Amino acid sequence: MIDLNQSDLSQLVPELLVIRASGHLFDSQRQYPEWELKNSDLKRLLSRGVGGVILVGGSVSELKQRSKILRSWAAKPLFLCADVEEGLGQRFIGGSLLVPPLGIAQIHRKYPEKALLLAEKYGICTGFQARVCGLNWVLAPVCDINNNPNNPVINMRAWGEDPFTVSALTIAFQRGLSSQGVLTCAKHFPGHGDTSVDSHLELPVLDHDLNRLQEIELLPFKEVVASGVDSVMSAHVLLRQIDPNYPATLSPIVLNCLREEIGFDGLLVTDALVMEAIKKSYGGGEAAVMAFKAGADLLMMPENPDEAIDAICQALLSGRIPMERLQQSLQRRKQALAKVDSLRSTLPTYKAKDDLFEVERAEDQLFAEELISLSIKVRNQEKKDLGVSQGGINLLRVDGVLPCSFLTQTSPAISVPQEAGYRTVLCHQLGVNPWQDDLNEPLALDRFGNGSFFLQLFLRGNPFRGDLNNREPWVAAVRQLEQHNRLSGIVIYGSPYLWDELIRNLDSSIPAAYSPAQMQQAQGMVLASLFQPVNSNKDLPPQKISDFTD
Amino acid sequence: MIDLNQSDLSQLVPELLVIRASGHLFDSQRQYPEWELKNSDLKRLLSRGVGGVILVGGSVSELKQRSKILRSWAAKPLFLCADVEEGLGQRFIGGSLLVPPLGIAQIHRKYPEKALLLAEKYGICTGFQARVCGLNWVLAPVCDINNNPNNPVINMRAWGEDPFTVSALTIAFQRGLSSQGVLTCAKHFPGHGDTSVDSHLELPVLDHDLNRLQEIELLPFKEVVASGVDSVMSAHVLLRQIDPNYPATLSPIVLNCLREEIGFDGLLVTDALVMEAIKKSYGGGEAAVMAFKAGADLLMMPENPDEAIDAICQALLSGRIPMERLQQSLQRRKQALAKVDSLRSTLPTYKAKDDLFEVERAEDQLFAEELISLSIKVRNQEKKDLGVSQGGINLLRVDGVLPCSFLTQTSPAISVPQEAGYRTVLCHQLGVNPWQDDLNEPLALDRFGNGSFFLQLFLRGNPFRGDLNNREPWVAAVRQLEQHNRLSGIVIYGSPYLWDELIRNLDSSIPAAYSPAQMQQAQGMVLASLFQPVNSNKDLPPQKISDFTD
Repeated sequence: MIDLNQSDLSQLVPELLVIRASGHLFDSQRQYPEWELKNSDLKRLLSRGVGGVILVGGSVSELKQRSKILRSWAAKPLFLCADVEEGLGQRFIGGSLLVPPLGIAQIHRKYPEKALLLAEKYGICTGFQARVCGLNWVLAPVCDINNNPNNPVINMRAWGEDPFTVSALTIAFQRGLSSQGVLTCAKHFPGHGDTSVDSHLELPVLDHDLNRLQEIELLPFKEVVASGVDSVMSAHVLLRQIDPNYPATLSPIVLNCLREEIGFDGLLVTDALVMEAIKKSYGGGEAAVMAFKAGADLLMMPENPDEAIDAICQALLSGRIPMERLQQSLQRRKQALAKVDSLRSTLPTYKAKDDLFEVERAEDQLFAEELISLSIKVRNQEKKDLGVSQGGINLLRVDGVLPCSFLTQTSPAISVPQEAGYRTVLCHQLGVNPWQDDLNEPLALDRFGNGSFFLQLFLRGNPFRGDLNNREPWVAAVRQLEQHNRLSGIVIYGSPYLWDELIRNLDSSIPAAYSPAQMQQAQGMVLASLFQPVNSNKDLPPQKISDFTD
Repeated sequence: MIDLNQSDLSQLVPELLVIRASGHLFDSQRQYPEWELKNSDLKRLLSRGVGGVILVGGSVSELKQRSKILRSWAAKPLFLCADVEEGLGQRFIGGSLLVPPLGIAQIHRKYPEKALLLAEKYGICTGFQARVCGLNWVLAPVCDINNNPNNPVINMRAWGEDPFTVSALTIAFQRGLSSQGVLTCAKHFPGHGDTSVDSHLELPVLDHDLNRLQEIELLPFKEVVASGVDSVMSAHVLLRQIDPNYPATLSPIVLNCLREEIGFDGLLVTDALVMEAIKKSYGGGEAAVMAFKAGADLLMMPENPDEAIDAICQALLSGRIPMERLQQSLQRRKQALAKVDSLRSTLPTYKAKDDLFEVERAEDQLFAEELISLSIKVRNQEKKDLGVSQGGINLLRVDGVLPCSFLTQTSPAISVPQEAGYRTVLCHQLGVNPWQDDLNEPLALDRFGNGSFFLQLFLRGNPFRGDLNNREPWVAAVRQLEQHNRLSGIVIYGSPYLWDELIRNLDSSIPAAYSPAQMQQAQGMVLASLFQPVNSNKDLPPQKISDFTD
C-alpha cells in the first residue's frame, strides 16, 4: 500500500467521496442544479470509482429506480445515503413523514418508556423504507443537544434538550434503524446544539472547552458509539478553546477527540463541504485535503469532485498526507459495506403486496398518526368550536412558499378554516410586509380588513433560514389582537419555545393548540379539535387527545 | 343488441365512462383527493369495465408506470388520456412544456408559414411524448376562438382570435399529433372563446344564434372534423338562443348540430361532469344520463361513477334512452381504439437511448427553446442593463403559490434580479394585500420600503381563477410608479392584452419585455435581454431576439 503510484491513487481516492444527486430521474427536474450533479457527470464520476451518493428529492418510486441506475453506473460498491432524519418522506414523496425528534423528546418527559419504544419504531419505519428504496445508509440520528432554543438549524431535529434524553432516544432509534439493514450516522460531532447561527450560511463559533464538552455535548456520541453506530458526521463549528484555527470538520485536534476520547473506529464523514461555513474560507480542493488530513474518512459533497480527487492524490503523492490515512479510510469503508451485507443476510426480502410499489405500509401510517396524536397539545379541555366566525381571517405564517411542502390549497390548515367561513392570508418571507413600526401594534391591521384572526404559525428550525424569525414579533402581535378583541384562536406548528412563550400570557378563553409536526395529517388532527366538522374531512378520525392537553 | 338485459348492460355501460386518476402512484400523493379516485376504487371500476382514465400530475416516469398498472387492472381496452394542450410537461414533470398556443398565433401574424410548421411540430412533440408514456388520447386541440380578451378560462389556450388562424393552426397541430399514434380531441364544442366566466365555477351564458356560430365559432370545428379529428369535447355553456334550457353538454339540440351541421361521426365526449356549471344544477347520475341521452358517447369524470353507471343502465332499461344510443356509442369507441392500433402499426417502437428513460428528446428541448425565442418581445432595441439598481424591489405577481409550478427560489425570475441587487416581493391571491383605496395611487408603497421596482406580472387565463384579475389595477400601478420615478423595468408573462395596454402609455425609456410563456426557460431568456449576466446562469445561451422586438 505504501508504494502506490498516481494511477493506483486515481483508482482508490474517488472511493472517499460522497457526491450529491437529485432523486428525480432527469436533469431538468433537479431542484438545486447548483449542487445536484447532472446525469452525465454522475455517470462519469461513478465509473471513475466515486464511492457514495447522497440523494435528495423525488418520489419513492423514482428513488427506487434511481438507486438501481446509480449502482449500474458505479465501478465500486456504493454507499447510497439520504438525510432522512424524520422519516423517508422528509426527502422522498410517498415515504412516511414523522413528527420531528424534539416532539418525541416531549413525549419522553411524561412517558419515558413509551417514548423509547416510539424512537425504536421510528428507526424501524425509516430504515425499512430506506432499504426497500435502495438506500444502505441513513444519515441519522442527530445527536446534538438542543440547549439553545434559538438554534436556527438543529432545533426540532434534536432528540432532546439534555444529554440523557438525547442518549436514551438516539440509542433506541439507532437500534431500530440497524435492525432494518441500513448503516447509521451520529451527527454533528462534537455537537451543533448550542449555536445560534446556521453553518449552512456562516461558521458558528463556540466557547466550550473539552471539560464542558465531556460533561454535556459528547455524552450522546459516547453512548451511540458504545451501542455500535456505524458512522459519525463532523460539524462545521469552530471550537475556539480547543482549536482556534480550524472548524471541527477540518481540525485534527477535534476529530482526534472522536478516536481518542470516545474510542470510535468507524467511518468519520464530513458534513457537506459546500456549506458556506467551509466554502467561504477554503477552496474546494483544499477543504477536501484538509478534512481528509484531519481524520475524515469520507468527504461529503466536495465543491468540485474532480478537483477534490486530484488534490487528495497530490497530497498523498507529495507526502503531505501519509498513505496510511488512505489505507485506514478505505479499510473502514470496506468494513461498513461488509456490515450492510451481514445485516441484510438475516432479513427477509420485501415483497410488495400489490402491483403497486407501496413503501409506506399500513403499520407505518398508523405509527405516523400515533406520533402526531401523542404529540399534539390543546390548551382547553372542553372542545372549542371555531366554526362560527363569519368573515374571519385565517392568517398562516410559513417560512417559504416556493415550495411549501406541507401546504396546498386543499391542506387542512387552509380548507378547514375556509369551510368555517375564514378567508386565507398567507405570510411568508417573500410576501408583502404585514408589519408596521409600532412595538405595541406590530401587525399592520389595515392590510387585513375586518374580522377576527385565527392564527396558524408554522415555525421551526430550518436550515438556510438564517434565524428562527425572532425578528417577527408574534408575541406582541398576539397581544395586539387580544387587546382589539380580534383573536379567535391560535395554533403553533413547530417550536415548543414559541408555544410556551405565547401560552404564558394568553387569555385562557382563547382556544389554542400546539403540534411539533407541520404535515397535513398533523394540521387535520389539530384542527379537528378546534373546529366542528362541516361536511368534508370524512377521512379524519375523530381524535381523542385529552390525555395530552397541558 | 335491442334485447340487452340488466346484466349485459352492467357489462357494457361502464365503457362509456372516463374516470380521473392522479399520475402519481400512491393515494397519499394525490393533489386533488376530491376528484382523483383512490387506487382501490380505480381498480374496482376498471375491473368492472370502465373504459377510460384521464390522468393528471406526477412525473413522466410515474406516468409510464401508472399507465401500465391501469391497463393491468382494466377488463376492457382503455382510453388513457390527458389534458396536455401545451405539451406533456403541462401535466407531467419531465415532459416538454411549450409556449401556449396563443403565442404561436402571435407568430402566425408575422410568419404564417413558419407558424404552421411550428404548430405541426407542437403536435409531434406532444403526441410522441404522450405515446411513449402510455397515453393513447390527447385532449387537444382547443378549437375555441379567443374573441373575448377577458376570457378567464380559454385565453392563452386558444390557437388564435379569429376563425382562420385557429383553423389553420389546429389542423397543423392535429396532423402532428395524429402522426404519433394518439387520438385527438377538438374542444370545447360549440365554442368557449367568447365567455367571460369560468365554467369550472359557474355556467357561462351566450347570446349567439346558429347564424353567428356558423359564421365564427363553428368554423374551426368544421375544419378539424374535415381533417379527421377523432373526438370532440362539449362545452359547459348555455346558448340561450339555441337551447334556453340546457347547457351544450346536456343539450340534444346543440350536440345534434355537431352531427348534422358539421357531419361529425366520431366520439363525442363531455367536458368534466364534476364542473360546477353542471354539478350545481343536476345530480351526478342525472347529469350523466342527460349527456348520454343528448348524444354524448363518453362521459368525462362523472361525479360518482357507480351512480352514473346505474342511472344509465336504468334509463336504458326503462326505455328513456333507446338501446341504439348505447350501440352507437360503443361502436364509435371501438372504431377509435382500432384507429390507434392502425396508426401505431406503422410507427417504430421507441427505444430510449440511455438507461434513463428520457421522454424529452434533445430535439424537443431545442423546439421548446425555439418557440420561446420566437415569441418573446423586447420593447427597446438597445440592450438595457437593469443590473445597476442596488436596493431595488423585484415585485412578482402570480396567481397562486401553493404550488406555483413555474417559480422556485432558483428560478430566473427570482435569481437574476437578486444577483443584480433586487430583493424579492411576491404578490399572490392569498398574500397580504398590497393595494390601497386610491385610484391614482393603488399600490400601498409603504409596504415595500425604498427602491425602484422591477415588475414581473405572471397573468394569463387560468381555470379556477374566476377572472383575469382585472380587479388588480396594474395599469394604474405602473403609472403610479412611473410618476414617482420608481419603475426600473417591467415584464409581462402571459396575457398579450395586458402587455398591449401597459405598453401603450409606458415611457419609452423604461425597459419592458413580454413572453406568452411563463416557464423558467422563458424567464431566463427574457431576463437575459434585460440584465447583464453577473456570474451564474452559464447554462443559458446568450439570446438574440432582436428579430422579434416590437
